[in-house]
Amino acid sequence: MVSIDKDRLKNTFETYSEIGRTDKNGLHRLSLSKTDKKVRDQFVQDLEELGLEVRIDEVGNIFGRQEGADPDAAPVLIGSHLDSQPYGGRFDGQLGVLTALETLRSFADEGIDHRRPIEIVNWTNEEGSRFKPALMGSGTFADEFDVDETLSQTDSEGTTVEEALEEIGYRGDSPCKPREPIHAYFELHIEQGPVLEERDRAVGIVEGIYGMSWLEVTITGDADHAGPSPMHSRRDALVAATDVVQAVRRLSNRVSDDVVTTVGEFEVEPNSINVIPSEVTFTVDVRSYDDKVVADLVERVETEVEAACSREGTTYEIEEIWRIPHTEYAEKVRTTAIEGAEAADISYQSIVGGAGHDANYLSEITNSGMLFAPSVDGKTHNEAEYTEWSDIVDAAFAYAETVERLAE
Amino acid sequence: MVSIDKDRLKNTFETYSEIGRTDKNGLHRLSLSKTDKKVRDQFVQDLEELGLEVRIDEVGNIFGRQEGADPDAAPVLIGSHLDSQPYGGRFDGQLGVLTALETLRSFADEGIDHRRPIEIVNWTNEEGSRFKPALMGSGTFADEFDVDETLSQTDSEGTTVEEALEEIGYRGDSPCKPREPIHAYFELHIEQGPVLEERDRAVGIVEGIYGMSWLEVTITGDADHAGPSPMHSRRDALVAATDVVQAVRRLSNRVSDDVVTTVGEFEVEPNSINVIPSEVTFTVDVRSYDDKVVADLVERVETEVEAACSREGTTYEIEEIWRIPHTEYAEKVRTTAIEGAEAADISYQSIVGGAGHDANYLSEITNSGMLFAPSVDGKTHNEAEYTEWSDIVDAAFAYAETVERLAE
Repeated sequence: MVSIDKDRLKNTFETYSEIGRTDKNGLHRLSLSKTDKKVRDQFVQDLEELGLEVRIDEVGNIFGRQEGADPDAAPVLIGSHLDSQPYGGRFDGQLGVLTALETLRSFADEGIDHRRPIEIVNWTNEEGSRFKPALMGSGTFADEFDVDETLSQTDSEGTTVEEALEEIGYRGDSPCKPREPIHAYFELHIEQGPVLEERDRAVGIVEGIYGMSWLEVTITGDADHAGPSPMHSRRDALVAATDVVQAVRRLSNRVSDDVVTTVGEFEVEPNSINVIPSEVTFTVDVRSYDDKVVADLVERVETEVEAACSREGTTYEIEEIWRIPHTEYAEKVRTTAIEGAEAADISYQSIVGGAGHDANYLSEITNSGMLFAPSVDGKTHNEAEYTEWSDIVDAAFAYAETVERLAE
Repeated sequence: MVSIDKDRLKNTFETYSEIGRTDKNGLHRLSLSKTDKKVRDQFVQDLEELGLEVRIDEVGNIFGRQEGADPDAAPVLIGSHLDSQPYGGRFDGQLGVLTALETLRSFADEGIDHRRPIEIVNWTNEEGSRFKPALMGSGTFADEFDVDETLSQTDSEGTTVEEALEEIGYRGDSPCKPREPIHAYFELHIEQGPVLEERDRAVGIVEGIYGMSWLEVTITGDADHAGPSPMHSRRDALVAATDVVQAVRRLSNRVSDDVVTTVGEFEVEPNSINVIPSEVTFTVDVRSYDDKVVADLVERVETEVEAACSREGTTYEIEEIWRIPHTEYAEKVRTTAIEGAEAADISYQSIVGGAGHDANYLSEITNSGMLFAPSVDGKTHNEAEYTEWSDIVDAAFAYAETVERLAE
């Protein structure tokens, strides 16, 4: 059995959490910022102290390689991301990188003899907060995005990714692509939902990630004076749009238990206290592990929009602005993760993830999988994000056991 | 019987409509702008050509006085406003001023012998679009607002009313208050609602104006990730707020036929496509001619907010930011207006107004009343605002007949 050093993991986590710490004990460490440079410097230093071969690629992804007994074997890739949301939490991404680091440190301490090379990685710009799109480093690595296209993305100030990389000294020479076939990719991440906490499980073995659709709906009515316009003569875009929001909430449990629906953006025109709203534009986010359910929901949302507009005498347009199928992680990795959790003697359950992760793009090029640690109250992307230390330790044990097996 | 000159009224209306005309045949003539100066200059010129004694007061209200047979009698005040909403219509306000002008011109042509002096007035800043509050000139005249306070109000650029008045040369010397008791105030205005058109009546004899309440409601939930947050764990401020909007619409016909409810402003935070909304702030506008109905509705809205928040697990705050009782116009003026409509041989009905008018503040200091002309489709405050010419002529005849009787 692999033994990790709990205190070292905690100390390392605290050290990294100081870099970009907010007043409320969260993390503000936008991708390729000065703070991101600081944490990258710390990470590279830690990799070098551990004797790893450090490599930085064209888009700033940082790799640290530990050879195994068989130098010709396909390596196991482990890690996550060190950038954060604006005023986000300390656990999202960082926990995965540091658990991977602790795993390698423990293997070194204990002289664990793995056959395959193991590479730890910190992916550039997972969050997509400063530069779009999210999952930039892993997506480019998996050839979903072109390197030149990635380097030319700009932030709100017009700075390109290339300029930002050069400014902080992380524009590497290594090509942003796999140098050899990769045996597997394995990532620990916080759940960002409440399921594991509610069911009192130490870790989630991630089966895959929801497919999703984003709709943009525009409803158009008439702007009339709120006083002299009798109710029966109105065509109120807000009345129709709010009717749809209520329907979207009801739909979420009509088709399947395995679906979530959210209206996140909602803009009203002319947005004046005594004028009947003439136009409302809003988004609908539909997610399910079952791609047919997503497709069905999209149709049902359109039916509801049509019905609400018919009731109110308004017109509408619907555009689907994004659709991606669900991601299923490799069975080999899931089976191994279950063995890892059992070896660590902790409770686990199969779980499906609702958010995108670097592991999604990696699943395009290798056997990819994830382990989720519980999130208190499911909170994420804000400073209140939290995971209990005992849960982190449990997850780290299961993670190390799994990595050992994947690298055998 | 008074005979008005239809062609002259039409020509005058077209001339005035050119000043600030928009591409879509609407009117953009914000209070105290250069365009407002142009129309004021035209108005003053027309008053002088008619031989009226022109007087401009401290806040730019323009009066033109025609003496009657008895110089000591209390005068009759007639008119409306020449300013417009941004990209508003040609009929709102302007029609009332020009019908009053045509009335005085016809009286002069026909040598109609009125006992009382008649004063025509153009009130400054009725709309409240550039400077707050609305009904500025009439409200100051009726001592609802202090003159110095009015002069120091600023537009979005920081220009004061006083500076704007001086810039266009309409900071008058006359005190902004009645110089003597006023016998009556009578104003023609477009209905801004669809009632007269629906019932095929030429004019509305306005009984009074709705009382109203403005509420500001803030609902607070939790911002969570739209993917990994199961529906049951959410506290979605938008779901609760849209529930309330639907309830507010339903409430409008539960308590009385005589009530309108509108949610006009609606702001969502953080307003991001994949984040569950944490806060929604919206307004509720409740109007009825019955002040008890307004009070009852305000309580019922609060009940609905409480119920919606209880269902969704959100919290709320409600603030009543404005409440005014209904205005009842003088019976003497209403009775006279009915006589006027009958003398003009046109169809009429009693009607209640939903919007504020200069006549409201005038009712604080004199016998005040209004005549409504039909609005096509009830449209107002936009460039599509329209009233049929035949309806304008009918209303002008009834108006002139009424003014003659008030000035007898």
